Amino acid sequence: MSSENILIEKLKHTLRDYPDFPKKGILFKDVLTILKNPELFSELIKEISNYEIVRNSEAIVAIDARGFIFGSALSLFLKKPLILARKPGKLPGELISNTYDLEYGSNTLCLQKDSLEGFNKFCIIDDLLATGGTAAAVEDLILNQSKTVTGLVVVVELQDLEGRRKFKSPVNSVIKF
Amino acid sequence: MSSENILIEKLKHTLRDYPDFPKKGILFKDVLTILKNPELFSELIKEISNYEIVRNSEAIVAIDARGFIFGSALSLFLKKPLILARKPGKLPGELISNTYDLEYGSNTLCLQKDSLEGFNKFCIIDDLLATGGTAAAVEDLILNQSKTVTGLVVVVELQDLEGRRKFKSPVNSVIKF
Repeated sequence: MSSENILIEKLKHTLRDYPDFPKKGILFKDVLTILKNPELFSELIKEISNYEIVRNSEAIVAIDARGFIFGSALSLFLKKPLILARKPGKLPGELISNTYDLEYGSNTLCLQKDSLEGFNKFCIIDDLLATGGTAAAVEDLILNQSKTVTGLVVVVELQDLEGRRKFKSPVNSVIKF
Repeated sequence: MSSENILIEKLKHTLRDYPDFPKKGILFKDVLTILKNPELFSELIKEISNYEIVRNSEAIVAIDARGFIFGSALSLFLKKPLILARKPGKLPGELISNTYDLEYGSNTLCLQKDSLEGFNKFCIIDDLLATGGTAAAVEDLILNQSKTVTGLVVVVELQDLEGRRKFKSPVNSVIKF
């Protein structure tokens, strides 16, 4: 097995499944167990840092809130600037925002208007890609500012939900289910 | 000036003030500007990693959600396990939780019940110490499990609000206002 495949197997064994969370019928993949194993967390960040999507970016946009964990570690590791995409009411100053539909209701994500200034190419990072609405909303926010998105990186992709089809730029996931 | 003082001055100049956020009468200190300067972010994480509170801990407990940024980077830097204290509805599995009073209403923070297993000494990290209710609630959660809290580390402390008086263990803040 390649070192990449060994890492993926280790990660798969470390993730924990929670049936019916956050609601009935959904099998939740908990990535927090990775964080309790610092060596594995470090290997994961190193692996992600080699992705072209990340290497080609000038800054990292991390999605509220588990995306912050992987985005921040990657930012420190690569010395690339980190920008946060947050839910309403969390960011001060002038904001740009995008509202997207969910199965029930809708969600909104915001960026500080001047947070993209000084950079042109952004990678987006989150823990999990499910239906893809959140990541696609952040991608649109960046594209609407006439900036480039090098792609989306997630730790876990739930392939059945076809979230990557909502995303215009390339998608790279470490673990696929 | 010592290198520590030079860092503090640089950080103070980088923080941005937002009057009346999140509500009228509050001067919000935005730490996100630090993240756009990777060298400064890296220096900050190195500085925090030298604190006795951090060195004496076996694991880091980061508070939802800006605490995740500094906790995650510190976890990667020091190869110490990271545990998240989150708002209700965000963590799967069996939880322990603590509800505390705010000026208006109340807040609850949760830990996964088995997240503290295997470690005895925890440092708590957050971006900002204001009235201190959140950090004190997390401290109590840990102490109630018969575990030790080495202390609380924050990037910014608003000294007028005397938040550190609510905390039983030592507190170390990088920037004091």
